[in-house]
Formats: sequence, C-alpha cells, structure tokens
Amino acid sequence: MNDFIASLLEEISRIGRTPSGGANRLGFSPDDQRVRKLFAERMRACGLEVSADAFGNLTGRLPGLNPSAPAVATGSHLDTVPNGGHYDGVLGCVAGLAALRELARRPPLPHPVEVIAFQIEESSRFSNSTMGSKILTGRADFEALRQAKDFMGHSLPELLAEVGLDFEKLPTAVRKPGTYKAFIEMHIDQGPVLENAGVPLGVVTHIVGAIRARVTFKGVAMHAGGTPMAGRRDALLAGAEAALALNAVAVRHSGRYSMVGTTGNVRVSPGAINVIPGEVELACELRGTDLTTLRAGWKEFETALAGIAAARGTPVSIAVTENGVPLPMHPDIQQCLRQHCRARGIPFIEMASGAGHDALNMAHVTPTGMLFVRVRGGLSHHPDEYAAPEDIAAGSAVLLDSLAELAEQP
Amino acid sequence: MNDFIASLLEEISRIGRTPSGGANRLGFSPDDQRVRKLFAERMRACGLEVSADAFGNLTGRLPGLNPSAPAVATGSHLDTVPNGGHYDGVLGCVAGLAALRELARRPPLPHPVEVIAFQIEESSRFSNSTMGSKILTGRADFEALRQAKDFMGHSLPELLAEVGLDFEKLPTAVRKPGTYKAFIEMHIDQGPVLENAGVPLGVVTHIVGAIRARVTFKGVAMHAGGTPMAGRRDALLAGAEAALALNAVAVRHSGRYSMVGTTGNVRVSPGAINVIPGEVELACELRGTDLTTLRAGWKEFETALAGIAAARGTPVSIAVTENGVPLPMHPDIQQCLRQHCRARGIPFIEMASGAGHDALNMAHVTPTGMLFVRVRGGLSHHPDEYAAPEDIAAGSAVLLDSLAELAEQP
Repeated sequence: MNDFIASLLEEISRIGRTPSGGANRLGFSPDDQRVRKLFAERMRACGLEVSADAFGNLTGRLPGLNPSAPAVATGSHLDTVPNGGHYDGVLGCVAGLAALRELARRPPLPHPVEVIAFQIEESSRFSNSTMGSKILTGRADFEALRQAKDFMGHSLPELLAEVGLDFEKLPTAVRKPGTYKAFIEMHIDQGPVLENAGVPLGVVTHIVGAIRARVTFKGVAMHAGGTPMAGRRDALLAGAEAALALNAVAVRHSGRYSMVGTTGNVRVSPGAINVIPGEVELACELRGTDLTTLRAGWKEFETALAGIAAARGTPVSIAVTENGVPLPMHPDIQQCLRQHCRARGIPFIEMASGAGHDALNMAHVTPTGMLFVRVRGGLSHHPDEYAAPEDIAAGSAVLLDSLAELAEQP
Repeated sequence: MNDFIASLLEEISRIGRTPSGGANRLGFSPDDQRVRKLFAERMRACGLEVSADAFGNLTGRLPGLNPSAPAVATGSHLDTVPNGGHYDGVLGCVAGLAALRELARRPPLPHPVEVIAFQIEESSRFSNSTMGSKILTGRADFEALRQAKDFMGHSLPELLAEVGLDFEKLPTAVRKPGTYKAFIEMHIDQGPVLENAGVPLGVVTHIVGAIRARVTFKGVAMHAGGTPMAGRRDALLAGAEAALALNAVAVRHSGRYSMVGTTGNVRVSPGAINVIPGEVELACELRGTDLTTLRAGWKEFETALAGIAAARGTPVSIAVTENGVPLPMHPDIQQCLRQHCRARGIPFIEMASGAGHDALNMAHVTPTGMLFVRVRGGLSHHPDEYAAPEDIAAGSAVLLDSLAELAEQP
C-alpha cells in the first residue's frame, strides 16, 4: 500500500510542477483536469466504479454486499493554491484510494466504500473555498454561484462549459439524504502542532470557526514634513494598534479553544513616504473551536478598535466578511480513529483543525471525522510542504482500519 | 498687485485642471510646458528679460543700475504633484513676478532682481525633488541624472529632448559663483502650523533634515489557521511595533527642533488573510531642525527596531535612502523678513519648514530665506489646497519690501 501511495503522489506531483518545485493546479485549469483524469484512471485500475457528478466531483466506489446501504466515504481534493505543495488535499485522495484498493482485495463488506476527489477546494480562484463539497452536500447557493467570477473575470458557468459541464445541471450533484454512513478526511496538519507535539497523527476534535473582517480606519492625509506630531490623525498608527490588539485577544484565549488571530494584510492610502496615512485597511481574522469564546474574543477586539479610533481621532468601520461557526467532529468517528491509532501503537494527539476542509461540509450530512498527518516545519501552501513516508504510512493504516470497521458495522 | 496675482493664479489654475478641481502638471508634461510658456510671456509683458537655461529653469530679470552686480532673486516652481493644489510652488512664482512688476515701475535699484521658475521641483516623476535648483546651484550629479528614469521608464535625456533641450548642455545651467546676492522663496505652509498659530505669515528659521529608510522585518509565513499563537514569527506585528516606536521617538523630541516622524507606507508579503505575514516593509522617515537631535532620535529608533526584532524573532534590515542635514536660513534674510512684517503690522511666527524646497539648494550658494503663507486646514498636495487672498497679499507685500531693500543695499 505504501509503495502505491508513494508512486501515485510522485506521478501527480509531476503535473503542474513549478520552477521552484511546487504545484500549480488551480481548480478547472488544464493541469487540474489532467490530474483528475489520471486519478479517475487509477480508480478504475483499482476496480472501483468511477463517476463524476455535474460539478465534476469524482467518486470511486467499492460496492457493498448491500448495494443500497449508505456508503462509508473518504477523500479530499486534487487542486492546489498557486505554487502550493504536493500533499495538501492530494494526500487524502491518494491514501483514500490506497485504502479502497486494499479493501477491494478483501472479502466484500456490508456497506459500499467511496473515495471522493472534491472539485476546487482551494479559495484561490473564486475567493470561495470547498465549492465541490458545498455543492455535493446541498450547502451551495446556486444563484450566487451563477454570478460568481474568478479573479480573471471568468464566470463559473463559462468555466464549467470549458470543461464540458453544464451549470444548469448542478442541482443534480446534490446527494440524497442517506447517501453516506460516515466520512473521514485524512489531511496534512497545516501548521506545526503535530511536529511540536512529536507525534505523527492528530485526531481532529473540532474544525474552528472563523470571524473575518476588513477593518478600516480613516485619518487625515497631510504632509509628513509640514504637520507637527500634535493633532495628527494618522490612520496607520491606529492600524498598528489594532493589529497588536487582535494578537493580544488571541494570545489571551489561546490556551483554551485553540484561538488564533491574524492580521494578514494591510493597505495604506495614499501610501507615500512623505504623506501621513489617511486611510488604512486591515484584513483581520479570529478563529476558535468554541463559539461563545470566539464571539466574546471578537467583541473584545471590537471594543479595542472603538477605543483606538476614539483616542486617535480616526473613525473605524468593520465590515465582517465571514462569521463562521466552529464544528465538532462526530464523537463516534473520533473514537474509531483513536481506537485504531492505539491498536497499531501509533502515537497521536487530539487537536483542532485551524483551517476549513471539505469535511466541514460533509459533517452537515453524515458523521464525519478528520485525521491529521504531521508536516515538516509546519509548512503548507508552499513548495517545501512535506510529510514523511512513515507518517503517511501510519495515517493510511489508521484510515484503512477505520473505513473497514465503519463499513463492517451494521 | 493683488489683482495681478489673483488673475495670474486663476489663469494658471485652468491649465492641467483635474476633474476634482486639482492641478496635474507633472514636470515636463505638456501642461507643465504650457504653464511655463504662459509664465514666460507674462514675465516679458512685465518688462523683464527672460531666459531659460539648459535644464529649462526660467528666469525673468530686472536689470540693476550696476548690471554686473549679483542679483537678488526670488521664485519657486510651477510643476505639481498628480492631482495637487493650485498654490504649492505657483504662489512663489506669481508673487515673485508681481513684486518685480512693481519694482519695474519704480526708479532702478543698484542690484538686478530676478524671479526664477525652477524646473521640476516635485519628486513625483523621478523620485528626486528640486532637480532644477540642484542643477542651477551645481549640486546635481550629472552621471546619476543620465541614468535617471521616471516612473514610466523614460530617461531624463529622452524627456529633455522631447522639450527641445540637450542633456549634454546641462553643465552650462550651473550658475557662476557670485551670481546671486540673496534668495527668498515665498511658499505656502504645507501643514497646519500657521493656521493653528492664527497668523498669516511664517518666517522660516530652518529647513529640516530628513532621514529616510526602508525598514524590513522577515518573519515566517505560515497558515493562519493551523499555526498556534505561541512560536509565531509574525512580521506584521513587528512592523506595527516599529511604526509606533518611530511615532514615540518623534513625539518625545517634538517640543524642540520640530521633530516629526512618519511611517508613510507598509507592504505586507504574502498579504493574504489566511497567511501569517512573512515579510513587512515600512517606509519610515524622521525630520528635525537640529542635526545632533535628529541623529540621536534615529539612533533611538534603530535601538527600538533591534529590540523588536529580537523579541519577535523577526530579523530587521534598515536601508537608509536619505540622510539629510537640517539647514538654517540666513540670519540676515530672516531679520529682513521679520522687520518688514513688523513694519507693515502683519502678525507672524518663526517656524521650521518641514519640507524641502528649492531654497534648500539656493542656500548653498547665497544667503537664503523663506516666507510661509497660511494654508487652510493644513492641506497641501491636494485639490482643496487654499490660501486666502488677504494672506497672499500680506506675504506678497513683505516679499516686495524685502526684495527692494536687499536690491537697494550695497
């Protein structure tokens, strides 16, 4: 199984490879299509029934003794961010296929087992993540999708037509209730949590919820030489205090509920060395696993912003762009994953997922869990993203055992 | 005289006018050429001998009784920043011409009197300010100018050729020692200093020196969701602390020596909402009128930067791009300006110029002073830049009296 995984990861990594050794497979791009075609061929070669829905979500199915029983599913995505890594998403697809390949050689199980390669998980193209699993689970707003444009101005209906799909048929991609019995996504840890803990695997307890906002301070742009310090309304200084305040809120709550807070970007206007900044816009987010604490933390941040704005004479506006809810993973799936780690003697920790995943959507339609695999240096969305073969082997074994158990149980 | 000034300001303001009512006359642009042509015609109409040097600096000259005596000069510039105002630079040219027009009607004075419209004072095109006066006073590096490219990639020799000038002849624009007896530049205050003081005029004591640098912190770009707060190396938080530290240094010294400090721009990399900033670059400057204090203040800032870098694990690099020296205005010219303010009963204060001006270069070749005129709301480099006619009249009268006295004295 491990040779199969290593060889397929290597084969996929050659498609859309960048000069710096990363992967460029934006959803719907020709290289993404090539990888999907390859993956479908490999699924067929493993004896699976292969189908693609109206959005292009690929499924490989191992029939069960009871063909109409709900399926135990696994999977992830094959698309990447620009110049991303070779494990994010791909690992979950490949390890899932390897597990089904193994199960196909065993006596048939009562439940069907499926591996899904979700279409366009990354938000790089449409500023909208997990689009494939949103559609498949009935969580997509089709009218909003009809209007959606990618960063080049192409509409989703246009892009679908280019790859031979019909936007009008998208509703047929929504799975019927009762399609799935359970879902497990194996994925790399996208930070240093497992590396710091010194263990290969993490059993995910929650996917965090994120509150995101554009925070804008309005100051007064004046000549930096001619305007004394007293009486300045410098929007950048307000922004600096805001970034530090968000960090302080997250640090204060970081011990519990895995809270993290980040200011990822700053835009300064007019942005000249000799002009006092008249407007500053910050991209802020706060994530956590407990909704009450997350909302309380955000409230603390908003209170800090109001104080900064008043003290500096720089009015603030807060445009919330995302108001997410933390989602616990299903206790039965967590228990199943923990049990198979222990059975194989593989060290693991329980941890939160700080990022969203296709599992977030699947959790709304079926009991869902996630298994994280240690990544080197905490690097992800980066050409140097790397998971060691022995850690991948550990994760794949636990995935296989868990799928087998879930497909066996009535 | 005041009608002449109002009418010429109005006439000039119609050339290169922007939709928002500002002025767009980038150096060497067609509209800048049009204004220069108009100004030369008006100088001729006032009875002045008009000449342009090899760089296009325009001079209107009123001969003296002793034609070979050094000239008493005034002037400023006619070019503007993009969508700038109608007073910065233009006012000094127009008020200077009005003064010479008045002097031309009086009995001849012993010394010649000149009004100069310096070529391309604003740094918007070449990131290099006061180019015309730098060349005229022999302070330009011709080999560096030969390589200079504007923001569109045009070289200076190309742009000169477009307006009928020859780069190779630039050295002929350097004035011989002893050309000038004195220089006075009248200019709008580019901040709220005079407005706050409630007086129309300011006699400039110093032009500040500026130290400018690009300050870069290198952090580690990691997934904002997957990376816990502990152990992050967030370059943006370091940058936020640096901007606040620079502000604190300037505030600490602002009481004396007119110190001001500004972070005018921030560039964040990669700049995505879900990635911890891996690199942040700040555009920082500190200005002051006392060299020792300025350098001590900068040293305090550098010490703060080193502390921030060490505490956050985000190494800092400091690329100093300008290391200017504050320049006192000549005591005799200051005295002359003060005396004529008092003689006319016009309230004034003594103040520093926080911005550089053509006077900065002229001060290296002749006793030089500056007279500032109150501007509304401290606004400059802005379409709403505005000086009241009565304040302009006050400044123009003091300028006229001062030029007359200096041209009379042996």
